Amino acid sequence: MAQVTIIGAGNIAGAVAGIAAKAGAQVQVLARELAKAEAVAGPLGGQAGALGEQLAGDVVVLALPYAAVPEVLDRYAGALEGKVLVDVSNPVDFETFDGLVVAAGSSATAEIQARVPDVKVVKAFNTNLGATLHTGAVGTVPVTVLAAGDDHDAKDAVLSLVRAAGLRGIDAGSLKRATELEAIGFLQITLAAAEKVGWTGGFAVID
Amino acid sequence: MAQVTIIGAGNIAGAVAGIAAKAGAQVQVLARELAKAEAVAGPLGGQAGALGEQLAGDVVVLALPYAAVPEVLDRYAGALEGKVLVDVSNPVDFETFDGLVVAAGSSATAEIQARVPDVKVVKAFNTNLGATLHTGAVGTVPVTVLAAGDDHDAKDAVLSLVRAAGLRGIDAGSLKRATELEAIGFLQITLAAAEKVGWTGGFAVID
Repeated sequence: MAQVTIIGAGNIAGAVAGIAAKAGAQVQVLARELAKAEAVAGPLGGQAGALGEQLAGDVVVLALPYAAVPEVLDRYAGALEGKVLVDVSNPVDFETFDGLVVAAGSSATAEIQARVPDVKVVKAFNTNLGATLHTGAVGTVPVTVLAAGDDHDAKDAVLSLVRAAGLRGIDAGSLKRATELEAIGFLQITLAAAEKVGWTGGFAVID
Repeated sequence: MAQVTIIGAGNIAGAVAGIAAKAGAQVQVLARELAKAEAVAGPLGGQAGALGEQLAGDVVVLALPYAAVPEVLDRYAGALEGKVLVDVSNPVDFETFDGLVVAAGSSATAEIQARVPDVKVVKAFNTNLGATLHTGAVGTVPVTVLAAGDDHDAKDAVLSLVRAAGLRGIDAGSLKRATELEAIGFLQITLAAAEKVGWTGGFAVID
């Protein structure tokens, strides 16, 4: 049985924890640990050794705002080696709301993979608005999770989990396709924020 | 009543011609003229003056492969001034099938707008697979046409046409958002080519 660790406390963290549980995985959520570490020790980096060993999952989901990712990666770097790391982020520039904070043509996922080269990074869930992951539907259409990454087995682990939870999962290609997935995630957020689609709607994938 | 000129002879050209006709517009399709000009005169550029005057539409739809666009723009440059120019292209690099031929962070639409600054360029229809525009549905979900551009009235003209034809239309934002629309178009083509979605499916937009 898969073991899944979720790092994060937000909407997507909760949704992905629910999906992993529904898939029959053992689920660890490190939201509280993170908060405690921040409160007690200030910058997360200070806790690297001890807390890094707490990662129970073979699959670790970084369900955090992208701005929080580098610090968490530094903290858990050693403990992540060999694991599957799932990046759900949409690195929107929230100051301008007119682009991403990563370089054009790159992606948050590519930046993460460059930072932790010995980790199998998979992009997933970023094209799904939180509410749709909770209900399993975009409007009345079943949710599809798109995943991209360079390690086939890692991507397969994530898609298997998604499918075991009763959702549809599609392999969207190599890690380079994270650029397109983040474009979709970004546009979807701008459309929802502008009330052109609802937060329970957005992009659905049809067979 | 709107007058719409379609330049092109492919699947999308036919679909958009059908939409414009359904919307009650007068529709001119310049597929044959283009073919004739190519056959008789070689490079299209040679026919600039005379053929340029044939554009009847206030809205001109460039329903061409992106590689054919620069030549057609040069040919019609003067005749396009002040008009609404609709770019439907997905500038996929068909040699690698692993990216776009436009610069990262840019878009075909931005390149077109830079080439014809006095023309009101609107990105639209590129996120719709041809078959879905013909039937009006992605699977069983009604088609939504996403449009992006910097001229509000121009974008409105395109969206009004779409809606008058009974389709849904959403303003996806400024011309910068063409980058995201082309990312969606590209990913959708790769998914369909890999048989992960059907050519009658793909991305649908849900309220």
